[in-house]
Amino acid sequence: MKRSELPFQQCSLARTAAIVGDQWTLVILRDAFLKVRRFEDFQRRNGITRRILTLRLRMLVERGIFERVPYQSRPLRHEYRLTSRGRDLYPIILSIVHWGNEHLAEEAGPPVLHRHKSCGADIVPKLVCAHCEGELTSKNVEARPGPGLNDPASLFPE
Amino acid sequence: MKRSELPFQQCSLARTAAIVGDQWTLVILRDAFLKVRRFEDFQRRNGITRRILTLRLRMLVERGIFERVPYQSRPLRHEYRLTSRGRDLYPIILSIVHWGNEHLAEEAGPPVLHRHKSCGADIVPKLVCAHCEGELTSKNVEARPGPGLNDPASLFPE
Repeated sequence: MKRSELPFQQCSLARTAAIVGDQWTLVILRDAFLKVRRFEDFQRRNGITRRILTLRLRMLVERGIFERVPYQSRPLRHEYRLTSRGRDLYPIILSIVHWGNEHLAEEAGPPVLHRHKSCGADIVPKLVCAHCEGELTSKNVEARPGPGLNDPASLFPE
Repeated sequence: MKRSELPFQQCSLARTAAIVGDQWTLVILRDAFLKVRRFEDFQRRNGITRRILTLRLRMLVERGIFERVPYQSRPLRHEYRLTSRGRDLYPIILSIVHWGNEHLAEEAGPPVLHRHKSCGADIVPKLVCAHCEGELTSKNVEARPGPGLNDPASLFPE
């Protein structure tokens, strides 16, 4: 593969970044996990313009992250619900919230707290390996070329 | 707090989204975790323009995510290294990669694989509660108003 073909634009990160690499989309997803479902609610809570909100919701429906479900027939109105694929984005959103709580906290404390209902603890999330349950960090994870990479030498810097 | 003050723009998610809610920034961070450190390498691998790359690197240094370290004195050249705060972004990046592998995979398979060096397994990351080690999902996590929220009623949709 030639360098000009930009293999890294095709990786899972770059494809997913094309969806979640947007401030408004992240705010909309955060609200969706707080059970916000209606256009007017997304808009009112975040001061997002109708045009930007319309574009983001359309993209999220096209990517299968929201489904558009009628909640009223006269006049017809739809709400936006997370699909199973959309709910799988939760670790991304919660990791972002946690990093912000750790590194960008205000004196007053965070406006939103999260509790793990299963054990009652205020949440400190930890990313672990599903196989051995050990924590995953940049130090103990090794990247290597996968089957979709034509030029394995291009993975690491020269 | 009045609705017009947009409390949710001040939450940890929105603040962090102002950093990571950008496609190029996510690609640069992914590369940084692959040990890419130099301007020309970031640029060549991703076809990013010099202007966009310069702006993103500057922002990441200002936010304390990269430090700029000289690696050559004649002429003076700097490289960009993840700080401890920057390395804490790893769960976000790995969660994004994993979601893409699960939901946007190509037939050829992913171009990059990740192995947990501690146990040797190809990584399936799982976000758990540091207190009880149980998995965190949108179903078993409960959001509630925190000390930084002046109008607790505004947390959930009406």
